[in-house]
Amino acid sequence: MVGGGRGGYIGAIHRAAAILDGHWELVAGALSRSLERSRVSAADWHLDGDRAYSDFRRMAEIESGRPDRPDAIVVCTTNETHFDVATVFLDAGFNVICEKPLAIRREEAWSLVDLAKRKQAIFAVGHCYSGYPMVRLAKGMIASGELGEVRSVIVEYASQYGAERGYSMPWLDDPERSGPSGVLAGTGTHAHHLCEFVTGLRVEEVSADLAALVPGHVLEDHATMHLRFVNGARGLLWNTSIAVGNENGLSIRVFGSQGGLRWHQENPNILEFSPLNRAKRTLTRGGFDTSAANKDWERVPYGHPEGYQEAYANLYTEIAEAILDREAGKPAPAEGYLFPTVTDGARGVDFVFAALESSSNNAAFTKLGPPQAKAATDREISA
Amino acid sequence: MVGGGRGGYIGAIHRAAAILDGHWELVAGALSRSLERSRVSAADWHLDGDRAYSDFRRMAEIESGRPDRPDAIVVCTTNETHFDVATVFLDAGFNVICEKPLAIRREEAWSLVDLAKRKQAIFAVGHCYSGYPMVRLAKGMIASGELGEVRSVIVEYASQYGAERGYSMPWLDDPERSGPSGVLAGTGTHAHHLCEFVTGLRVEEVSADLAALVPGHVLEDHATMHLRFVNGARGLLWNTSIAVGNENGLSIRVFGSQGGLRWHQENPNILEFSPLNRAKRTLTRGGFDTSAANKDWERVPYGHPEGYQEAYANLYTEIAEAILDREAGKPAPAEGYLFPTVTDGARGVDFVFAALESSSNNAAFTKLGPPQAKAATDREISA
Amino acid sequence: MVGGGRGGYIGAIHRAAAILDGHWELVAGALSRSLERSRVSAADWHLDGDRAYSDFRRMAEIESGRPDRPDAIVVCTTNETHFDVATVFLDAGFNVICEKPLAIRREEAWSLVDLAKRKQAIFAVGHCYSGYPMVRLAKGMIASGELGEVRSVIVEYASQYGAERGYSMPWLDDPERSGPSGVLAGTGTHAHHLCEFVTGLRVEEVSADLAALVPGHVLEDHATMHLRFVNGARGLLWNTSIAVGNENGLSIRVFGSQGGLRWHQENPNILEFSPLNRAKRTLTRGGFDTSAANKDWERVPYGHPEGYQEAYANLYTEIAEAILDREAGKPAPAEGYLFPTVTDGARGVDFVFAALESSSNNAAFTKLGPPQAKAATDREISA
Amino acid sequence: MVGGGRGGYIGAIHRAAAILDGHWELVAGALSRSLERSRVSAADWHLDGDRAYSDFRRMAEIESGRPDRPDAIVVCTTNETHFDVATVFLDAGFNVICEKPLAIRREEAWSLVDLAKRKQAIFAVGHCYSGYPMVRLAKGMIASGELGEVRSVIVEYASQYGAERGYSMPWLDDPERSGPSGVLAGTGTHAHHLCEFVTGLRVEEVSADLAALVPGHVLEDHATMHLRFVNGARGLLWNTSIAVGNENGLSIRVFGSQGGLRWHQENPNILEFSPLNRAKRTLTRGGFDTSAANKDWERVPYGHPEGYQEAYANLYTEIAEAILDREAGKPAPAEGYLFPTVTDGARGVDFVFAALESSSNNAAFTKLGPPQAKAATDREISA
Repeated sequence: MVGGGRGGYIGAIHRAAAILDGHWELVAGALSRSLERSRVSAADWHLDGDRAYSDFRRMAEIESGRPDRPDAIVVCTTNETHFDVATVFLDAGFNVICEKPLAIRREEAWSLVDLAKRKQAIFAVGHCYSGYPMVRLAKGMIASGELGEVRSVIVEYASQYGAERGYSMPWLDDPERSGPSGVLAGTGTHAHHLCEFVTGLRVEEVSADLAALVPGHVLEDHATMHLRFVNGARGLLWNTSIAVGNENGLSIRVFGSQGGLRWHQENPNILEFSPLNRAKRTLTRGGFDTSAANKDWERVPYGHPEGYQEAYANLYTEIAEAILDREAGKPAPAEGYLFPTVTDGARGVDFVFAALESSSNNAAFTKLGPPQAKAATDREISA
Repeated sequence: MVGGGRGGYIGAIHRAAAILDGHWELVAGALSRSLERSRVSAADWHLDGDRAYSDFRRMAEIESGRPDRPDAIVVCTTNETHFDVATVFLDAGFNVICEKPLAIRREEAWSLVDLAKRKQAIFAVGHCYSGYPMVRLAKGMIASGELGEVRSVIVEYASQYGAERGYSMPWLDDPERSGPSGVLAGTGTHAHHLCEFVTGLRVEEVSADLAALVPGHVLEDHATMHLRFVNGARGLLWNTSIAVGNENGLSIRVFGSQGGLRWHQENPNILEFSPLNRAKRTLTRGGFDTSAANKDWERVPYGHPEGYQEAYANLYTEIAEAILDREAGKPAPAEGYLFPTVTDGARGVDFVFAALESSSNNAAFTKLGPPQAKAATDREISA
Repeated sequence: MVGGGRGGYIGAIHRAAAILDGHWELVAGALSRSLERSRVSAADWHLDGDRAYSDFRRMAEIESGRPDRPDAIVVCTTNETHFDVATVFLDAGFNVICEKPLAIRREEAWSLVDLAKRKQAIFAVGHCYSGYPMVRLAKGMIASGELGEVRSVIVEYASQYGAERGYSMPWLDDPERSGPSGVLAGTGTHAHHLCEFVTGLRVEEVSADLAALVPGHVLEDHATMHLRFVNGARGLLWNTSIAVGNENGLSIRVFGSQGGLRWHQENPNILEFSPLNRAKRTLTRGGFDTSAANKDWERVPYGHPEGYQEAYANLYTEIAEAILDREAGKPAPAEGYLFPTVTDGARGVDFVFAALESSSNNAAFTKLGPPQAKAATDREISA
Repeated sequence: MVGGGRGGYIGAIHRAAAILDGHWELVAGALSRSLERSRVSAADWHLDGDRAYSDFRRMAEIESGRPDRPDAIVVCTTNETHFDVATVFLDAGFNVICEKPLAIRREEAWSLVDLAKRKQAIFAVGHCYSGYPMVRLAKGMIASGELGEVRSVIVEYASQYGAERGYSMPWLDDPERSGPSGVLAGTGTHAHHLCEFVTGLRVEEVSADLAALVPGHVLEDHATMHLRFVNGARGLLWNTSIAVGNENGLSIRVFGSQGGLRWHQENPNILEFSPLNRAKRTLTRGGFDTSAANKDWERVPYGHPEGYQEAYANLYTEIAEAILDREAGKPAPAEGYLFPTVTDGARGVDFVFAALESSSNNAAFTKLGPPQAKAATDREISA
């Protein structure tokens, strides 16, 4: 692991999720830029002291030479460093699991896509919400046609963490460290990934209205976006950090010609399904009228809510499968793996830049891109 | 009443709401263009047979000459006739209660505003959702500053009545009878009125993306809109008739610097209130921690849900008050009456036309108008 | 109407519900024991001044002699007078609509059953919750076998109106005026009627634990009861006035061999239905997958919540039908009418007395009765 | 671990919860009575092959002699063996974590209480629901007086796992293996523990009505109980396995003189709090208006739901603390530890037997016991 030491939030989540099913063990880390603090954090997690580093380049060098080198590197650093860290470890031949947003510049993002492909590396991005069983059930229902033609997609990620001037993590509003986008880079890319993941449809163009509504904020804290999907479906994305009362506030609703779906991450074990001209059904994780495949992502029976860590754990389990498959020379499944890949991460970066462009252009619709050609490969492992 | 005879839906609602508190009685009607059917409907409601008409112009002529002439005329006809019917009865000196949208042309709408003002008529429009006690509580809380500065307004009116080709009321998709707008004219104007009513803020400009998504539909059945309010607040409006599983689907969320509010019309006796940095509270009609004024709009105690008809009834009671005030020579209250006026109706028509213009112009922001000067007078009774 | 004058709560509900569908008109009343106040209340509702009385016996005498005598008398007085008022008007040949509990003594209750039967009077009791469309849908679903054999019935009426010493209506805790039971007589009889109405099953015996938990209360403010039904089903009833936070708090859950149902009166337009081994469905008033019969009790479409007054109105409409049927010499429908009859009222009184007896006998199971023979006739109109 | 091997449900939960915070490691196990299967399961969890046993007595003998002997033994076997297994390991000087019910005979349960005390062992019982942060918040709020005097406690554990004849785990209805009680021993003891844990009050006596409602069931599958608490509070407990549509169905509601609380395990991150005469508040894990102590039991921020495994993990973390404290010679905290102790387990067994006695005695109130003297020591570690 790079970053994520003591006091960090997301590092602990990654570790707990990774070990939940017994597939992973944390063995080395550049957990802080201070060697002393890196060692303290390493001790918290029972790592060997000599595998605690302060410099990720040195870690890459040493660990890549070990016979028991790690299967993958988790990147939990701040946004502006994702590109450098991931590049170094890809170059050193590692698989990478990187937090989102993949990068703060469009060209960096697509560069990682290319590098991962060249290196034949597994590269997963931290779009953790795609790990929830009910999100995957939704994806499966849409893929199998239960909703008919998808017509409208409404996705929200509206939180309250920026409702007052000054963030608890000040770099969130610092263009030097976060790049030109605020809330969209922070949580909007999750919403974007979620809507493409669930529907299986690409967002083709967006019209955006971005604003920094809290006095003193520099980067946008509020975004509304019209979405147009490749099949002609329309939609909207609402993303903000100023929605007082919304703890996390991620939800998605999809409406097709034959039914509608609703999922809200704060009640993640439930998926509401309204078939056309029939009563609404409440589908539950592990419950009735859900697909058999859904059972793969469950650890406890219905009525016993699984939570956020379990969603992450699902991703780690799949990443382990992907690595083992590759090492065994097995091809990826025809339908691809479900964990978010580096291409997914690059799509997220594109999404942010298209929004910035549209918003500065009187909400004119703006195509996502650039590398349209890559769209065809989107469920490949690493790109 | 003009229109609204047997088999009509909205006429029966108007009648039941009007009589609920004992302030109104239905005495005459051009309930159908067929005299026979008008008489049958009149008998249903115990009207005198000689006050059942087939021609609304004749009804205006005769009823205006009676010593016991009606206090107001309710217009429940289809959209394209609102203008003619309302004009005739205004000219004949009646107060008017007209269903929305006020008109299907911008200039007709503002013409009614002018005529009502010249005639000193009370003119109310059927934006019934503003009659719910919890909507009014929300309005009062925002007006009194409990939310601080309003920053973001999210309003949805997303139903399923047009999810399949062909509406149960075919004129909804017929430009001859509905004008150039479909769902926005049908329910979107409710959403627009609701967000201006609750926040007390005018929508200044919109960026819209309109589409007819169900194959065969002519008029738009799906609209997403960025909203910009006069105080700099942003927002969005989602309006559709294709949201499978949404029975009515009207809701509003308002976020300010000091708190957030949420109201959903399908559970109308509840208003969720999240003060900044405090736990969410569930405010209930007649319950604790609500304003004293709220008690004026209640008929039954908390825990005994009031419904849709009662919301309409609140409007009828206020309209009766306004008429009695005017007849008694009393001025309108300084803060105005709360029922939707003809100006509110004209704003709704403007809103639809601005959306059409924006959508046909690549989602460019488009100002509402034309008659900006009138905005200042918006809480006058008739204009 | 007897009782129910200005300031009274339930009288206004009865009037509004009665007129909602156009079947009833309020024409005369002993609205107060003071003639002056009775006249003031009569004026509120546009009654002829000479039909406002202060003495219900005189009202019975005069009104029974008029050619336009009322079709029915509504009894909205306090509990201890129900018996006298109802008896006088039955004797005078009127149909009666009486608030619950029917009487405060067991023998009075069954005496009214007998008298109504002898007089061939329509006699309805104010168990208003049976008027909700979704309650009736539940009844219909159980009757048609959708739940299989009913096994368990959980009914709650847990409110907060007595959570502090001293009721807003002091007679609620006064044995002289309320009889030997407090909350059970006040709201528990509603819960009892609801569970028998919905399931179509009689409560055969009860084991009760009654207590006055608020210091200073004389009559019980808390009751828990084991219920045993005639078919062997078990259940429980929880009834209290001290449940802080519960506004009204009436709900019922029924579990059978083939499915489960849940209805909560504070969200009355919804019925949750869980078929065995299938996902839960949310049935809505007027929505999909509900029976056609359900449409009879609706005034507005799905998504437009109906409320408490409409539930009462359903009863009034049916009572009108029953009276018109009887006057026309038509027999009652084979399945009986649905409004609560005088026998239902007497069952409620029995229920209270069986609970008192069980609770004073260490929760020993106690049979309802006495007049078991009458049970067979329970869906007759008047007994 | 004893029991809990591959295919077992609860063993995997215990392991995952134990390792979540890094305090525990699974090192040895008698995971099956077949040595081969025990070894396969051991391999799943990366145990040394020579620490996989088929005989728990042999495991106790060998492991107790190792220098790196386990800190505690987890007992995940079927109910009738809990007593023997726990006794053997207590005798061998181990701390014990035992699934509930503690035993299937009253005297066995209290014998374990005595033995644990004599051995000064930490002995925890698997009442996992007490590990949820919001359950602990509820306990803290009641202890600090926020609800005033507790008056009424309503606890439900109503599931559907026995709605059809034949359980997926047949021993649940086999008196040889489960003892004289069915659903009460299976899940009712959780409900009993939860209501005593949250309120801090002992159930003093019960009146019970038990029935086997599904044809063919031998042991009770439905129980309703009147509860009387030591302070005079009343309550009810409903426990069943036949509630079609209820996935797990555990909830508790507590009503005091100053407020009411509601928690439902299927939405465990929320606690509803209604202060007397104030609007209802929705308290959330990690959210606003909750106590600082609550933060100890959180791993992720508000809005990111924690689940069932995390509740178990909280218990494991505390058990680790208790063991470390004891090994360090530190006394238990004055207020005791929060994890369920062997005395809590014995109380649960008493509860079941009192219910059986009451139900066979026409629902007569029956005191819990026998060993009343022990009640005073209830928050000691081991007894």
